[in-house]
Amino acid sequence: MGLKYQQKYRVPFYESDAFQKMRLSSILAVALQISGEQSTELGRSDVWVSEHYGLFWAVIEYDVKIIRFPMFNEEITIETEATSYNKFFCYRRFSFLDSQGEVMLEIASTWVLMDKETRKIDRVLDDIVDPYASEKISKILRPHKFKKREAFENPTLMTYPVRFSALDMNGHVNNAKYYDWAADMVDFEFRKSHVPSRIFIKYNHEVLYGEEIHAAMSWEGDVSHHNFNEGSTQIEIHWTEHTASHPF
Amino acid sequence: MGLKYQQKYRVPFYESDAFQKMRLSSILAVALQISGEQSTELGRSDVWVSEHYGLFWAVIEYDVKIIRFPMFNEEITIETEATSYNKFFCYRRFSFLDSQGEVMLEIASTWVLMDKETRKIDRVLDDIVDPYASEKISKILRPHKFKKREAFENPTLMTYPVRFSALDMNGHVNNAKYYDWAADMVDFEFRKSHVPSRIFIKYNHEVLYGEEIHAAMSWEGDVSHHNFNEGSTQIEIHWTEHTASHPF
Repeated sequence: MGLKYQQKYRVPFYESDAFQKMRLSSILAVALQISGEQSTELGRSDVWVSEHYGLFWAVIEYDVKIIRFPMFNEEITIETEATSYNKFFCYRRFSFLDSQGEVMLEIASTWVLMDKETRKIDRVLDDIVDPYASEKISKILRPHKFKKREAFENPTLMTYPVRFSALDMNGHVNNAKYYDWAADMVDFEFRKSHVPSRIFIKYNHEVLYGEEIHAAMSWEGDVSHHNFNEGSTQIEIHWTEHTASHPF
Repeated sequence: MGLKYQQKYRVPFYESDAFQKMRLSSILAVALQISGEQSTELGRSDVWVSEHYGLFWAVIEYDVKIIRFPMFNEEITIETEATSYNKFFCYRRFSFLDSQGEVMLEIASTWVLMDKETRKIDRVLDDIVDPYASEKISKILRPHKFKKREAFENPTLMTYPVRFSALDMNGHVNNAKYYDWAADMVDFEFRKSHVPSRIFIKYNHEVLYGEEIHAAMSWEGDVSHHNFNEGSTQIEIHWTEHTASHPF
């Protein structure tokens, strides 16, 4: 297994939602930031990767398991580790721990190295990943199977124009934004009694300024399926009802 | 003058915009967070104020002067100080300093104490503000005069539905969000050559989930005037062209 890296974090006001929980978009953003800090510490910062190989890292898939959300002002520990990699994909885990060291939330993520010029996926280079001491594997981990857009029954539709504030430094819609667009379509009353317990996200194509996001949502029981622009991003959210044993 | 409090801060990826500058919404959010930390250190946390007096702090006005924006990954120092107060208003300054101690950005802010039950403005209580050692003054600082909505010529109009992700823990639209809504109406091409150098924001009424934001924008030279819901929030942005002496 790879080198572990961890950092303490206190959930600020502006990363807390109306239910005092840490926003999922902030969870993903802060996780990314911390893996970037590990890379810098290991001499493999984004700048280094770009200058030496003309490549950049992109997350293409998340699988988030939530036991409970970090709460406003809670002091948590975020731990990350590059677990394994094969010819094209790197796998990285994040764990969010409470002050007792109990896991509240785990993220499995899949990363690729992209060519800055061609914006196509490149092979994983040993020189880039060696310092993480993660395991080289030959098999490709099976990705989550999302419900196809054609199979959405009675979808709810919404159009979101892509505005400046949705962009990140790469000039495209920030990855974390899609979750907000998905969850914002779920009824507020439902959200008062339900909380996500498992979230799958898959990014297939970037979306640029001035484009429109055509979002579709369809339900199967307590699972909401979300599809943006005919599959440029796919999200699946498993909602769980609050209970005494699952208050968050 | 009041007790100074400062903290170092490194601008993370997700608080950086498409131009690699720290987002204004993040600047306001982080500033607020740091003043909250000073309050906690002085034994006057939001929880304390709520439990002892049933009150909470609200910012009603910002005046932001920008020499240059903090950039992605830059290490900055944020300093804050409760400068003075009168019967109803408390005044607080924030300065964003670069690694040489040069001021890049200054925020003057006006705060009130609100009653949690009635949601009306309360008098400033000495027991709450004494620990900050700020000066008690009799006069009320002159607030900025915004252009009235009726005086907007050929306004650009936009409607923003208030969705879950725009809410904060108070259950209303987060203060920092209005700036995004204002600046998102400004042409992207214009933003490539211009940057805000002065921003005034005034909050008059809160907006809740499910309501709509009716935004209007009108221009006078390089100043954009923004009005939301007939004055619930007003914003004025002074834009400056990039030059060699003002690259940011």
